[in-house]
Amino acid sequence: MNNPSKYLDTLIKEFSKLPGIGYKSASRLAFFSLKRSNFEIDSFIKAINDVRLNIVSCIVCGGISDSATCSICSDPLRDGGTICVVENAKDVLTLEAAANFQGLYHVLMGVISPLDGIGPDDLNIAPLISRCQSSYPAEIVLALNPSIEGDATALFLSGLIKPFNIKVSRIAHGLPVGSDLDFVDSATIVKSFEGRVVL
Amino acid sequence: MNNPSKYLDTLIKEFSKLPGIGYKSASRLAFFSLKRSNFEIDSFIKAINDVRLNIVSCIVCGGISDSATCSICSDPLRDGGTICVVENAKDVLTLEAAANFQGLYHVLMGVISPLDGIGPDDLNIAPLISRCQSSYPAEIVLALNPSIEGDATALFLSGLIKPFNIKVSRIAHGLPVGSDLDFVDSATIVKSFEGRVVL
Repeated sequence: MNNPSKYLDTLIKEFSKLPGIGYKSASRLAFFSLKRSNFEIDSFIKAINDVRLNIVSCIVCGGISDSATCSICSDPLRDGGTICVVENAKDVLTLEAAANFQGLYHVLMGVISPLDGIGPDDLNIAPLISRCQSSYPAEIVLALNPSIEGDATALFLSGLIKPFNIKVSRIAHGLPVGSDLDFVDSATIVKSFEGRVVL
Repeated sequence: MNNPSKYLDTLIKEFSKLPGIGYKSASRLAFFSLKRSNFEIDSFIKAINDVRLNIVSCIVCGGISDSATCSICSDPLRDGGTICVVENAKDVLTLEAAANFQGLYHVLMGVISPLDGIGPDDLNIAPLISRCQSSYPAEIVLALNPSIEGDATALFLSGLIKPFNIKVSRIAHGLPVGSDLDFVDSATIVKSFEGRVVL
């Protein structure tokens, strides 16, 4: 393809490297860049650089943070008696968006996946055990995804944490709100039967 | 929503300003940024800056260019006898991707749209007339979109160019390849009847 500008061509290729952005979307974003003011472009570049330079892992939960301890772990209003274990830092934002959970988080940074060569030692599990030993939370809620790896990791963590006499629970898997039995897959229906609640 | 990093929050908002990127996609892009190497981020920022600093309008066609005259207008292998008129610079890339047209382009930078206060004087029309007067192309192909504004602009340009005894044509509007009569709208069917070709 004959692009009259190699600089625009390079920018389209750079945008194409982002997840979920194909060539057409990348072209649209590159042309949008052409129309933006210097101020807007500077803000965009500053935001990218700020993230690269300032974000660190929280020393308590392992999630993203602007300082040594993240704003959730250092918030005195959060319930330190419940720790929700998630796979990655993005899950924290997803759960916070639901504005439901008031406890603290712990980010595993993955799940046990022997096929990918990821064992328990590659995950942020040892600090979770230390938290269990030092702060004795009343409950650990496992909010891992319903996959084979998520199930295996939940089972493994449950075995590690129960000896401390801490309640270990896992978020429910079943029909999402607003869905229809017609449209969900068999695995979800099996999970929804397994997790049925007595009324 | 409680985002544990204000820098990440800012980057998500910056990504959300891009066209077609909602909050969820912006979060995904921001988290992707966290995983990228310094080299990758530097390349991305350089591409954005290069576009801002180096891209100009081609003095001949009005399209985007890295130098005074764009690579298409200065290509001796292109057919100078045919000029394709498009609405914006992005259309040039779309037509070039089809690798079909071998002539030159002229970018109007919009269409006549009285409702938006855009008249003929706001568009790149005068330089098109100059090109007609100086280089006498054999044909002007209007590749404007099939909208009321596109139709009006095509009619207006046709009236301006025909006095120079230059053939003026417009690209065909009808059923797209691979579509089905069942799925196209009535306006397209009307256009396909109007543009029917004798076999």
